[in-house]
Parts: sequence; C-alpha cells; structure tokens
Amino acid sequence: MISESDCIALDEQDPLADEAVKYYLPDGMLYFAGHSLGALPVAAQKRVASIIRDEWGEQLVGGWNGAGWYSSPARVGAKIAQLIGADADEVTVTDSTSVNLFKTIIAAMGLNTQRKVCLTDREIFPTDFYIMQGIEELLGERFLLKAVQRDRIPEEIGDDTGLLVLSHVDYRTGDVFDMRSITRRVHQAGGLVLWDLCHSAGILDISLNQVKADFALGCGYKFLNGGPGAPSFVYVAKRHQEHISQPLWGWMGHANPFAFDETYESAPGIRRMLCGTPSIIAMGCFEAALDELLAVSIQAIQDKSRKLTRLFIELMKERCADFGFTLISSQNDAIRGSQISYTHEQGYAIMQALIANNVIGDFRAPDCVRFGVSPLYLSYMDIWRAVDTLRIIMETEAWQKFQGQKKETVT
Amino acid sequence: MISESDCIALDEQDPLADEAVKYYLPDGMLYFAGHSLGALPVAAQKRVASIIRDEWGEQLVGGWNGAGWYSSPARVGAKIAQLIGADADEVTVTDSTSVNLFKTIIAAMGLNTQRKVCLTDREIFPTDFYIMQGIEELLGERFLLKAVQRDRIPEEIGDDTGLLVLSHVDYRTGDVFDMRSITRRVHQAGGLVLWDLCHSAGILDISLNQVKADFALGCGYKFLNGGPGAPSFVYVAKRHQEHISQPLWGWMGHANPFAFDETYESAPGIRRMLCGTPSIIAMGCFEAALDELLAVSIQAIQDKSRKLTRLFIELMKERCADFGFTLISSQNDAIRGSQISYTHEQGYAIMQALIANNVIGDFRAPDCVRFGVSPLYLSYMDIWRAVDTLRIIMETEAWQKFQGQKKETVT
Repeated sequence: MISESDCIALDEQDPLADEAVKYYLPDGMLYFAGHSLGALPVAAQKRVASIIRDEWGEQLVGGWNGAGWYSSPARVGAKIAQLIGADADEVTVTDSTSVNLFKTIIAAMGLNTQRKVCLTDREIFPTDFYIMQGIEELLGERFLLKAVQRDRIPEEIGDDTGLLVLSHVDYRTGDVFDMRSITRRVHQAGGLVLWDLCHSAGILDISLNQVKADFALGCGYKFLNGGPGAPSFVYVAKRHQEHISQPLWGWMGHANPFAFDETYESAPGIRRMLCGTPSIIAMGCFEAALDELLAVSIQAIQDKSRKLTRLFIELMKERCADFGFTLISSQNDAIRGSQISYTHEQGYAIMQALIANNVIGDFRAPDCVRFGVSPLYLSYMDIWRAVDTLRIIMETEAWQKFQGQKKETVT
Repeated sequence: MISESDCIALDEQDPLADEAVKYYLPDGMLYFAGHSLGALPVAAQKRVASIIRDEWGEQLVGGWNGAGWYSSPARVGAKIAQLIGADADEVTVTDSTSVNLFKTIIAAMGLNTQRKVCLTDREIFPTDFYIMQGIEELLGERFLLKAVQRDRIPEEIGDDTGLLVLSHVDYRTGDVFDMRSITRRVHQAGGLVLWDLCHSAGILDISLNQVKADFALGCGYKFLNGGPGAPSFVYVAKRHQEHISQPLWGWMGHANPFAFDETYESAPGIRRMLCGTPSIIAMGCFEAALDELLAVSIQAIQDKSRKLTRLFIELMKERCADFGFTLISSQNDAIRGSQISYTHEQGYAIMQALIANNVIGDFRAPDCVRFGVSPLYLSYMDIWRAVDTLRIIMETEAWQKFQGQKKETVT
C-alpha cells in the first residue's frame, strides 16, 4: 500500500519540485486539466506587460524590427524544436492548429499527387477530422479521405497512401502511438506521415528527426502553457521544405515580404509555412512559457510524468477500486501520455463533484473522466490529494447532486 | 496662410481633444503610422493584465465559459459591427486577415460556381493578391483570377464575374473606392463584392448594410489600435450566411462544437466563418481598444480625420511647396482615407530623417512617403509640428545623410 508519507518522500526527491512556484494556481486548486489549458507561468504575465508597454508602447511600428517581432515565428519555433527533436530551422509558429493542419495536409499531399489517399484514425481529435473533411469537400477527387478504426490503420497503409495523419497521443485514452514504427511502415509503403503533437509536446521526449518524421504540428496552450488560444507550431523536415507549397499565400510566407512584389514566391525553408501577421502579444506570452519550460530537461519532465501518472493509477487501484471506474489509459509507461482516463457511468456527475471540490479535471461524452498531469506544477502529494478527494466523493456519494446538469466543456 | 495659432484654435474646438490621453505615445513622438500599427490604448494594457491574471490565472480552463472566452469572437465582432454599418450578428473576429481572405473568397465564389472569375485591382495590397494567387493555384480552372488596372475595373465587371475583391482604401495613395456605386454595379452584373477594410475601419463612417455589401473583412491593428498582429474581423451579409461554406472546417465553426461529432456541420450564422481556437489574450487586447474607440462616434472620427488630412495638405502647400513633393492622395475629402502620401525621389532618405526627428511615418518603394493620421491621438498642432519638422529637414538638407541606407519596413 502506498502511504501519504511515501508521496511526501517522492516530493522531497523530485528534481522538478522547485518548478511549481513558477506557475500560478489559485490557492487549494488541484489542476488536472493541463492537457486542455496549461497553467499560467508567472513570467508570462510580466513578459506580456513588457511587450505591451516597452515594445508596442515605446517602439510602435518600429517593434517589427527593433523588438524582433518579425523574426518571432522563427525564434519561438527554434525553442519548440528543442522539445520535439527537430532542428531550429524546421519549426515555425503561427496561426491555429486547425489552420496549420489545413496548410500542412495540402502541402504534404502535393508532394506526390499520384497518391490521393489521406489516411487517418476515425477517432482522431475532431477538429483534425473536420479539417480533412473540409479539404475533401474543397478538392474533390484529388483528395480521398479514408478514416478507419485505429487498429486497422497498419493494414490500410498501402501504395495509394499519400499521407497518414495521426495524433501522437489520443485525446481520450492518452495512448501514445509508436511514432518510429508507424513512420517507418508508411515510408516503406512510399507515403508520408503528419503527427499531431497537441497532446504530447511539452510532456513526451519526442525525436522527430530520429524517427525520420515528415510533418508535425501542435498547439501552444496545453502542456506548453502558452495561454488560451496560443499560436500553433508546425514542423517540416528539412528534406521536404523546398518541395512543398502550402495554399495560404500570405505576405509572411513570401520570399521577399517587404518588396511588395506583385507575384507570390514561397520563402525558402520553413518560413513558407507562414501566412498572415501573427499576434505578437500571444507569441510573446507563448515564448515566455517556453523559456520557463526549457529551463528543465524534457527527459526530466517525461520521467516525472510517468511516475505521477503511474502513482495515480496505483492509488486508484488501492483506494478507489470499489467504485466502478474502468481505466482506459495504458498501464505501460511507454504508451501512456500525461493523462489518465477512466470511464464511469456517472462520469459527468463525478467530475462536477470533483470540480466543486477544487480538483479540476474534465469530462468527455459519453462517460470519460480525464486527468491531465503536468509535472511542472503538480506534486506527488497533489496526486494523493486528488485521489483521496475522489475517494471521499464516491464514499459519500457526493456526486449524486450533480446528476443531469450537463453543460458545455472545452478542450 | 495658416498660422500656428490657427492650429491651436482648432485644437481648442476639437471635440475629440480629450481622447489622446487614452493612448500611450513616447514623449515628443509625432506618430503618423497608425495606418500600419495603431498606438497603444492605455486601457488595453490593464485589460490584458486582468485577462492573464484574473481569467487565465484564476479560472484556468473554466475561463472558456466563465470568462466569456468562447463567445468572444461574436462579442468583439458585434462591437466592430457598430463601426462598419453592420448588424451585430454579421461580424466575427478570428484568424489573420490573410486567412480570412482565403476563407471568404472561396466561400463567396462557392455561391455561384457558374461564375469562375475573381476580379481584382492588380495594385491591391500584396497579401490580398497573393492569397488570390494561392487559391488559383489550388483550385485550377474552377477559379480564374483576373487582376486589372484599377481604372479598368468597371469595364471588366461582366457576366462571368463571380466576385470583385477590392481594398476600400488604397494602401499607397489613401484613395477611397466608392463602395455604393461599385457594389451596385457588380450586383447589376450578377456578381458579389468583397471589401477589404484594413485601411478604412475605425476611420471612415462605413455603411456596409446600407450599400448592400456582401462580404468584408479587415485587420485589427491599424486604425482600430488592437495591437501588433491583432486578430482580423469578417463580415458576411445575413442573406448570404446560411448559403456559404468556407473551407477551413475547425471546431469553432462547427454547429455543435462540444458534441465531438464525427462529421463536420457548419454552424448557423456568422459563426461558420470561425475555424480554430483564437488567442484570447490578443482578442481581449483588441476588445479593450474597441471599447475605447466606441466611446466616441465614428462620424466624429471621420470628420476630424478629414480636417487633419486637409490641414496637412494645406500646410504642405504653404510651407513645403518648393521641395519637390508630389501629392498622390486626393484633395477631395470624400475620396481620401486617413492617410496622406507624397512621392519624392529622395523619399526614403527623407522619411528616415523624419523618423530620426521623432516624426514617424513610413516609406513604400519606390518613392512614396506615407503619413497615417489617427484622429484619436493626433492634434492639429501635431500636424503643424510634423510639417514644420519636414520643412526644416528639407531646408537644411538633413535627409542627405540617410541616402542609401535602405532597410526593411513593415506595413
């Protein structure tokens, strides 16, 4: 049996224990929704204030060059590159994940127009699926969307597969796809892969270049703590960069953005993935969050993530075994993201009861409760307290008063 | 002859004179680049700090509902609607101008696929032109881009014209297109019009619904003072909303964004123009700027804009007539935006000398100097001082030392 003092001891040995003070959380809140919106890095607040007053206020339009605004997509991209095993000039930051999906899928499919099939997991995160449906509607027979059950993906990879689009970590279960073996398999079939890293960047030690990845992207606001609606990042392997064309031709992606040429010419390198003007304030907020995150190693984060999630699973077994929860996340560290999910027929009401008791996770219809685990601001004792709160809620049936009060939630 | 005391008198009678204190400008700076990046509204700084600390920090993921983040595109859109003569439910805020151009042009062309021609001014703002070129490349023969000289546009409008894309105010000269007559002419030919309001929103008293406009969009960071890279707005006339489909199908544009349906279904109304998650911090900054702007009437702003720009032109005639400047902006109030442009063979060096003397305008190759005029934070005396600074620079030939030092600039 794991005891409270075991958890205290784990905290005392935790090399990341000092990170939590860098993130603001309301007193007493146990925050398990970092897979949806990461907590506020205290430094981000200061950085944004400085961008507004010292850059926008003092330099005005001169900030584009004087304060490094123009180069910020590349600069922030280079920081993300360190987290995902990419080179500095393979990542840029701009737009939303959905917009970047659109650009990147079309760019990738354009590399071999003989192959018209875009293969995906039909249970991929909905916005990814919607974007692919929109491309199919727009491009007609030039783009054949094939969405299959997850376990059928390997057998569906064939000589018509132009691109496989997968989420690295499943948003419901937290399961991790094996990036290396899937990428190899698609390459052997002559296709390409786009990895959605929304639920893995900032948590897993990702090695895009080592596994010979082609394309990847993700959002800034989950485990990267970039703030609500933070801009998205895009990775394109260097070998593809000079051959792709993405369809959103804006001035930031032009070879000579200041020449005001009449004709569009793609910028060299990763810059061609840019389109219009990004929000400099949102970008700066994201950058401050990344600077905080990069002060520790991603290996240390992954290591603590595995220990925290394992502890969560163990404590649930020991303390909440009788309450009807079914674990749908993997018990294998190597294929578990930083998220624990259970199904329970009263999942909605239970999560509401947890939230009312200041344990913030989230719920996914029809019956899934999710606990995102950020090693930067959660301790081993926080896991203890969360599971203990859940135990009390179940024992006292405190969830009952939340039945039938469903309201909208946001990922 | 206009005297300094005439300008002082104009300031004393100015109903907008008290607005300037609401905008931060460095001491002594005369800022004439509001057509590129508007000045910082002091209230925006406070608002952003509050969004970061009180909303993100305190409410975390709960902010999507609890702090009104989810509804912010509609809420901010409704505020912009007041400035452009639209109904509240005809405008939304999301993405960049370039991304919105892509979505809106394809959506508009989809209303009548028999008409394949997208007509535009070949001297339209470059990013608009690039976006159209990208659509042409993507859609092939389904989209025929016809870019013609501005004065040939009326005669080119024909029964193959699906959409005319025009910038309401030309970014070089500041000339205003006659929205009413052009819209009517295109409608008579059976086509539609998309107006780019980037250089007119927040300055001109625009009446989209009165002139029966179809589509419009613009950026938030010029005369709307929304901050560097502020999100963009899109207007779709109510009669078109239920018939259009834009190609970027993200979760925010879904009919039931929280249901996690497998299949995309466009949201009713203007919300279908949304795609992914917008930056809430950038959105809040923009909203604070709009709240400041909406405290005065757009008619009063337009009125002062005309008086300030007219004063600029008159003072240039009286005090800088001998220095080789050619006015390329109109002297007719009704067809002049809030920007005065001159050509001069030493335009680049002259603008650098002005900037070195704290008069901030900008330069457009090959020979155009531009002075954007924001009535919210510029006074009549500021115009006097700017023209006087220019006079001294020309008389002393102080511009000479800036010859040949060209560097990049940003619009």
